[in-house]
Formats: sequence, structure tokens, C-alpha cells
Amino acid sequence: MAGDNPQAQIEELLGTDTVFRAERRAYRPHLCPALAGGAGVTRPLGGFDLEPFKIACEQLPFVSRNKLLEIVPDGKQTRPDRPRRIGIVLSGGPAPGGHNVIAGLFDAAKRAHPDNKIIGFLAGPKGIITGKHTEVTREMVEDHLNSGGFHMLGTGRDKIDNTEKMSQCRQTCAALELSGLVVVGGDDSNTNAAFLAENLREAGTQVIGIPKTIDGDLQVPGLLQVPFGFHSACMAFATEVGNLNSDCKSDLKYWHFNRLMGRSASHIAMEVAFQTHPNVILIGEEIEEKELTIHNVVRLIADVVVERARMGKNYGTILIPEGILEFIHEVNVLIIKISYIIATYNREAEEGESFHNLSFEEQVQLIDNSDIWRDYDSRVFLGFPSLLQKGLLLPRDSHGNFQYALVNTERILLEMVATYLRKQRAKGIYKGTFRTQNHYYGYDGRGTFPTKFDCDYAYNLGFAAYSLLANGATGYMAAIKDLHLPVDKWQPVGIPLAALMHLEERKGRLELVIQKQKVDLESRAFKILERERQKWALEDCYRFPGPIQFSGPGAESKPITLMLNSLG
Amino acid sequence: MAGDNPQAQIEELLGTDTVFRAERRAYRPHLCPALAGGAGVTRPLGGFDLEPFKIACEQLPFVSRNKLLEIVPDGKQTRPDRPRRIGIVLSGGPAPGGHNVIAGLFDAAKRAHPDNKIIGFLAGPKGIITGKHTEVTREMVEDHLNSGGFHMLGTGRDKIDNTEKMSQCRQTCAALELSGLVVVGGDDSNTNAAFLAENLREAGTQVIGIPKTIDGDLQVPGLLQVPFGFHSACMAFATEVGNLNSDCKSDLKYWHFNRLMGRSASHIAMEVAFQTHPNVILIGEEIEEKELTIHNVVRLIADVVVERARMGKNYGTILIPEGILEFIHEVNVLIIKISYIIATYNREAEEGESFHNLSFEEQVQLIDNSDIWRDYDSRVFLGFPSLLQKGLLLPRDSHGNFQYALVNTERILLEMVATYLRKQRAKGIYKGTFRTQNHYYGYDGRGTFPTKFDCDYAYNLGFAAYSLLANGATGYMAAIKDLHLPVDKWQPVGIPLAALMHLEERKGRLELVIQKQKVDLESRAFKILERERQKWALEDCYRFPGPIQFSGPGAESKPITLMLNSLG
Repeated sequence: MAGDNPQAQIEELLGTDTVFRAERRAYRPHLCPALAGGAGVTRPLGGFDLEPFKIACEQLPFVSRNKLLEIVPDGKQTRPDRPRRIGIVLSGGPAPGGHNVIAGLFDAAKRAHPDNKIIGFLAGPKGIITGKHTEVTREMVEDHLNSGGFHMLGTGRDKIDNTEKMSQCRQTCAALELSGLVVVGGDDSNTNAAFLAENLREAGTQVIGIPKTIDGDLQVPGLLQVPFGFHSACMAFATEVGNLNSDCKSDLKYWHFNRLMGRSASHIAMEVAFQTHPNVILIGEEIEEKELTIHNVVRLIADVVVERARMGKNYGTILIPEGILEFIHEVNVLIIKISYIIATYNREAEEGESFHNLSFEEQVQLIDNSDIWRDYDSRVFLGFPSLLQKGLLLPRDSHGNFQYALVNTERILLEMVATYLRKQRAKGIYKGTFRTQNHYYGYDGRGTFPTKFDCDYAYNLGFAAYSLLANGATGYMAAIKDLHLPVDKWQPVGIPLAALMHLEERKGRLELVIQKQKVDLESRAFKILERERQKWALEDCYRFPGPIQFSGPGAESKPITLMLNSLG
Repeated sequence: MAGDNPQAQIEELLGTDTVFRAERRAYRPHLCPALAGGAGVTRPLGGFDLEPFKIACEQLPFVSRNKLLEIVPDGKQTRPDRPRRIGIVLSGGPAPGGHNVIAGLFDAAKRAHPDNKIIGFLAGPKGIITGKHTEVTREMVEDHLNSGGFHMLGTGRDKIDNTEKMSQCRQTCAALELSGLVVVGGDDSNTNAAFLAENLREAGTQVIGIPKTIDGDLQVPGLLQVPFGFHSACMAFATEVGNLNSDCKSDLKYWHFNRLMGRSASHIAMEVAFQTHPNVILIGEEIEEKELTIHNVVRLIADVVVERARMGKNYGTILIPEGILEFIHEVNVLIIKISYIIATYNREAEEGESFHNLSFEEQVQLIDNSDIWRDYDSRVFLGFPSLLQKGLLLPRDSHGNFQYALVNTERILLEMVATYLRKQRAKGIYKGTFRTQNHYYGYDGRGTFPTKFDCDYAYNLGFAAYSLLANGATGYMAAIKDLHLPVDKWQPVGIPLAALMHLEERKGRLELVIQKQKVDLESRAFKILERERQKWALEDCYRFPGPIQFSGPGAESKPITLMLNSLG
């Protein structure tokens, strides 16, 4: 404390530059040996099947010829002919570690040539389109090092999806004389990166993507085990769920229903399950594989509640991935049909009379009258509780897509479980009490400080991006192989973006995009989860991971799914 | 990692006894000098006005004679004549640090006499009434040291509020030959403790209360600055809100409405505000003092939204204490009237036909027909949005009281702000976009690992409780004076419970209970908040406290409100 001077003490207490932030800034991320000595050289890496689809070769004739590269030291530090100007853009939802990608790129660039410059685009891809940018300074880098969020530059979700926007980007890059552009983002942003690489080639701007997403669904087997940000967000959620474990085992009276962010795939829920050992964990991909109905899912939860009540345990924790409804076939069919009906109606509707201005009864009437709506659909729909019915009618996004994240799936399941339990009670099968609390964890985890793992990982990614640019690569994603090993065994690689693309329906037509990876039900991690969760359901095997630590042995953790899947 | 043996590695990854937990267990809480040398002696402490009310003297004739005590070293360790058996019970909602109270009591008792025994009652006060208990062992203590929750013994909310229960407690204490009983809890549990002290006196069981509550509303000016658990819970909430600061400043498009646990008083919201510097912070006590209507409160939020939109900032964070509605006079009047109408109706109603089985329309009709419901009440009620109307009709608790925590106040305010902004937009005053996310933080913070401050504090409280018992005290609350100073300046005291009591309406009649402390609008902390929040509203002065740390300088924090209020 600032001695005995009250005013100085007040200022210290109200300051935003806390001791904790100073400590975080002081941490120097570790660099793997392949990047520690300079930009190094790239050379082909074999042993992986990365053939692009025919359609990718057609749409991306140049960058689809890229082959997998690894970055190795060249043993000497050659200064480039002339200083480079490299742009960087943060794209999509924030993920912990983004500032370290910038720091890595900046440090690598400045080390290679003191006059190299890093240009940060503001508020996401829109910044490239409109030319809004700022020069990244050492002060900015130092100030944001190891901190969460993307607020050094801001982020956004604009897609560069037509020739006009592409031409604007080309103009911006030409005007700024960028020899390179680094795109930090998820599947859509890396799709952008591939097309930018193809289109900016002749203008002399190379483009490199960086795998970012807390959702964990950007993976390349053997090469990209997890994107950066996943570990930190999962640890933030695990802290919260672990605390609820502690709370329910103390208070002995609540079932906590937790919905977790993560889009379709259940990667986050699975990692948080390994971190906390909840009583019930739903995995969307498994529900799809087993073709479970929503009533099956309700039963799956309720059976654990009933069995635990028999043991005198009227409490527990449940993890629900936010994308779960997409994997329940009967629900998904209705979602698709209703989206179609809404889109058709809205096309004809006057301003202010769109579907979402109708009353619930009018909406249902309209759906009932549609040609594509069968009697069977009505029966399924009417069998759902009102909260789910209303959820299915929620406004679609600007592309007409259903917004899974808007649905309080945890409350829907909670109410359906309660209804089922009332029937079991009437039959004398269930004698417990069912008091509940529901939670949604998402934005708070997205904004957390990055774990040491993500600090190091993101910083190495920034360095790797510079190496790829310095070696003339474009249309690649920078990645770090062998993340399960210590940093001194990490291997930076360049993965050809075109090879990761497949066709997907977007806005009603097939588009070439980077493929999202769902949970692999054949993976070692899932097999272990399948076995362990039986025990977690009834015994109280709760794990309390506690808040993310930045010093001591507790700070040296990595995603458990990553570690399990990397075991021989 | 467990070498190269995959099976051993899997077991390590799936183990619940993590490196982090081992680190936490290894921490030895610091003890203040007055307690470090043994049980010490007690002596009267002057300078504080602690005269019990007349009614307290009547109902608690013996313990109301207690005078404030301080514990000081006696310079020698005298072994007591015969081993003591001391009971301990955890009561009410869990609070981080509870296990350290047990550890402190255990260590103090064992140090005084190796045959001293600590008896833990299970699942709260019900454990005393029914005699369910377990002997606390060194292994239990070591295993739970510095961990969150109350799961070593469990907790519960039963009140010892009639002569039959009191007599059962007396029997249990006699059967277990307890010379002392330590009650860890909030205002109600310490009220219990006072009556237990009075009633168990002749049976030879002394009773000491321990101030626990994350809500922070158990305070005695100059003697008890905050109860244990408050700091940890606030830090957990502050981590989450700080992460949302980071997220909204990165993504630039969401207003995050956060409701925070804490019952009536706004202590938690105020501390979290100092930790995070949100754009808007509501303080219930201030709303009451200024006689704000709910529309005033909505306006207070909306004005900041409008002003920030003018600056191009369509994002922010807002803190809403869960008890806020109680302080809005017009809302509270309706709550009280509706509670009365519901109670009157339910007394006459058949099983299964209670108020909450009626439709919303029938409920409103019933209220309208009541003699106590004026036209003015109807006008106010009908002026509320439907979510608030429905909130006011929610089921009352078993005592007929309104359950503030059940109302989604953050969603009600959010919708009312949205409605107001639509009007401002129509007038051309507001041109921003208003996208929102709402959050409720409570149970997750309650279950967090205790901060180092709470680890030390709770451990000292356990020691102080033993000292008071060893010195023959009963009907006292153990407390630590001068928490703003380093541990080596902490001063353990015994505060007479009877002096903290006042009359309060409970279940329709006046009862003698410990008085809850609300936020003092004349306090230094509030005055500083009043000044600072102007700046926080418009500038982005966000503070990012990050996850609770347990080593390094970042681990040495204390509640900011405590520190501000202790400044000369």
C-alpha cells in the first residue's frame, strides 16, 4: 500500500493497473526452439493426407497447390532486403490469447528487421474493407501482453464474401503496401484468409490464417490438436462448474443445469466434464449417432436424478452443450422446416409485418398451413413443452439460420425433466425433491485472461505466421504440432488452407468453407468419458479445478482431452 | 506427468486430487499474535457502544449481560483440567472459508489438549436437533484446509425456533457432553446462537457464533468490518464481470446486464463495482434514499446507454444487486400487499387450489377484488411490463415472504430499458444499437475456493472461538478487529450477541433477531463510488481483476470497500 497517505491509497485502490496485471505483463511467453533463432526456413513435411477437393482446386487454383510445410531453423539470421509491412486482423468472437498472437508477430517482425511494421486493422475484417487501421507499437504490445480479450484492436464478424469487398481489401492492402496479412479467426475467418490469399497474390500481399476459437472445432488431425483460446475458456467454465460442484455438495439441495457456449460441437462440454466430473454430461455428437429423441435425452437426465434420490442425494451438476438441439433429429427437422416457412413468409411480408411480429397463435397457424408441414410434424411440435415450441419460433439470424445460442435449452430440459419426475412420483418410483438452478456460461469465459498454455501457444503462432510470410508462403494456416509435449518440443507448421475446405450449405447454397470438426466418438478421450461418466453419475467424484493460476505447478495445465487423445 | 505409462497418465489426468488442490492444502494460514501463543485470556474492551435493547435483556436475561471482550496472550499455556468436547455446525448458504473455521477450532483445541474433541454436526442445525454428527479428525481437517464449500459437514437452514427444537438441542448437547458449541452462520444463525447460549447455559454448553455470509450484511462498526466469505465470493463475481468487461470492449456490441447475489443489501454489488468499474452500478440503499421509482431506475440506465451510443460505444456492463426491488418503494408496496392477499387466500383455499394454481388472469382478478388494493395500485401494476407483473405474483416462501432471488430483475430492467430506448429512437434522440446479454452470478461464487484473506480470516475466527470457550464465554460472536491491517496486527474479540439484536417482523410478528447491515450511504466507500461512477459510465475505465490468485503479490488482496472505509 501507498504508505500512510490516504489520497495515494485511494488512488492505488481505484487504479486499473493492478499488481495482478503487472504480474501478467511481466510473464515472457516461451518460444519453441524452431522459432527461437529467427524466421528460419520452411520445408515440405510428409506423412499427412491433405489433398484438396476438386472444387477447392477450381475456386482456389493457386493456393490449392500449397503443400504442408514445417518451419526449421536456418542457423543464420539474414536481414530481409527491405522492411516489411504486415497487417493483422482479429476476427469473430474474442478468444483468450489474441493479444499474444499480435505480440508474437510483432516481436518476430522487429527481430528480423527493426523497420518492419505491424498494421492492426480495427473492429475486425470491416477494418480491412474500410481501411481503418492503426500501427501496432511496442507500448501497445507490452501493455496487452498475456491479457484477455481482443480490445487492442477490437473484432467483428464481417465476411469478405463478394467481389466488391474483395476489391476494397485489395485497395487497402495496396495503399498500405502490405507484403503480408495475418487473419486471426475461426473456420469462417480462415475461409476468408484462403480467398484473400488467392485474390491478393498478384497485388503482392501474402495471407496467413491463425486458428482461433474457444469452441475447439477448428482441428486438423495430427497437426492442429486445438485452436488457441479453447483451453482458457474451458478453464474459466470449469472454475464456475467446479464451484457449483462445491456448492451443491455443501447445500445438498440443488440440481444445477449448466448450458455451455461452443456452437454445434460438444468439445467445450467434454473438456469441462473432464475438468469437473459432473453427474450428467450430454454430448451432441453421441445423441445424433444414437438417434436419441428429446424425450430420450430427458430420460437420460431423469434416470440419474431418480437413482441419486434413492441414495438420498437430491443434488448434482449437469452439462449441456449449447448446440445440443441441432443433434436431436426430430427437433432439427422442425427447425429446418420452420426456418424455411419463416423465410418464405418474410419474403412476401410488408415491413413491420414479418413473422416475428405475429402472435404465437398466428405463427403456429401459419406453420400449420404450410405445404411442407406434415401431420406428424404437428404431433411432434405439440408434444413439446411451450418453452421449446417458442424457442423453435425465435428470430432467425440475417442469413435465415436458427440461432441455437438464443434458446434456453437448459431451462427447456429442466422443465421436461421436472414434468417426467412428477409422473414418476405419482407412480411412487421417485421420492426425492427436485430443486434446480440454471446457468449459461459463455461470454465470461470468452473474455478470461489466457492460461499460460494459451499465452505460449498464441505467441508461438504469431512467430510462426511471421516465419511463413518471410519464407514466401501464402494461403496457409500457421499451427503448432505436438502441443501435448513441452514447449521445447513444439513444431511450427504451415497447413495449406485449401486442403481443409469442403462444401457446406450457407444461405441456401453450397459454399466452399473450412470444415468444422465435431467430437470424434472413436477418440480415446470420448471412450474414456463414456466409461468414467457412469461413476460420476452416482458417486460424487467431483473435481474442483479452482480459478486459473499463473504461477506454481497448478499453472502448468493443458486441455485434458488433448492430453488423453495424444496418449499412445 | 506419470512418465511414459499411458495407464498411469490417464489416472493422473482423471484424478480429483489435483496439483492445484495439493498446493492449496499445503498453505498454512497465518495466525495473529494474540492467538498464536495459545488460548490466552479475555478482558473487557471499552470504547464501543453495545447496549442491548430492553427486549433483548428480557428475552436473553443471562447473555444480555455480556460485555465486549478482547483476547490477549496470557504468556503461558495451561492445560485445562479435563478434555473438552466442542460441537460445530455450519448453517445457511455455503461461504468460502468455512472449512478453515473448523480447522482453526480443531488446531486450537488440539494444541490446548490432545484429547480435546471436535464434533461436527451434519447438514446444518438439523444435525443438532436430530443428533446427527461425526467426530472431526485431523485427516478431515487437512483434506479440506483452504478449500471452498461446506461439504466436510454439509449445511442447512433449519431454525431452532421453538421450545421443542431447543429441548432436542439440549438433549443432543448433553448426550454428547459438549462443553461448547460453535455456530457458523449469518444473522439468523447467530440469532440461533444467542438463544442457544441462553438455553444451554444450565446444561453446561457454552455457545459462540462465527460471522459468515457472502452477502456482507453482518457487520459491527469498528469491530466486525466484513464477515468471512464476502471477499472470496466478490472476487469470483469480479472475475466474471471483469471478463465481461474484456469481452464487451473487444466485441463492441453487447450490453451485459448482471444480477449479483447478496439478498437485500448491495454490499456485493458495490465491492464488485470497485473491482471492475462497470458502466452502471445500482445501489438499492441509494434508490430507497432518493425514493426512485422503477421508471427512474430504467432512465438512469438508459441515459448512460444513450450517451455512450452518441460516443459510438454500443456496449457496456451493468451491475444489479438481486435485492433491488425491495428498495423501490412503489414495487415494494405492491409486493407487501400481494403477499398479504396471497396469504389470506391460501388460508381458505383447498389443497391443490392455492393461489399459484390459478391462471394469471384469475390471480389478477383476485388481487383486484381485495379490500386493500386501491385503484392507484392497479394503475401502478398495469404500468409494469408483464415480466415484472408475473414476478410480483411468484410463489412466496414457507414464511409467506417474497423471494427476491427468484425474480429475473436483470431481464425486467433490460426489457424496460429496451422499451424506453425504442421511444427515444422514435424521437431521434437515440441512434445506437442495443444488443444485450443477461447473467446471474450467485451459486458459482458461493462455492469458490477462499482467497488467502478469507483462508487466514476464517482460520483466526476458529481459533478465537476456542479462546472464548476456554475463557468461559457464551453468547458471544467471535470476530477479528482491524482486518485492514496485516495479520500480525489483527485483534480477536468477542462481541456480545444480545447487543446486536433488534426487533424485526418475521412471519407477521415482531421477533428479536440480529440486525442486518445495509450499505451506509455516508461511508467513505459509497462517497467515492458516487464520484467515480460518473467517469466509469462514459469512459472505459474497466478493471480486469482476473481469476483469484494464490501466490505472488496478486494474491495479497482484501475487499476494496473494507480498505476504503478504514482510511483515516
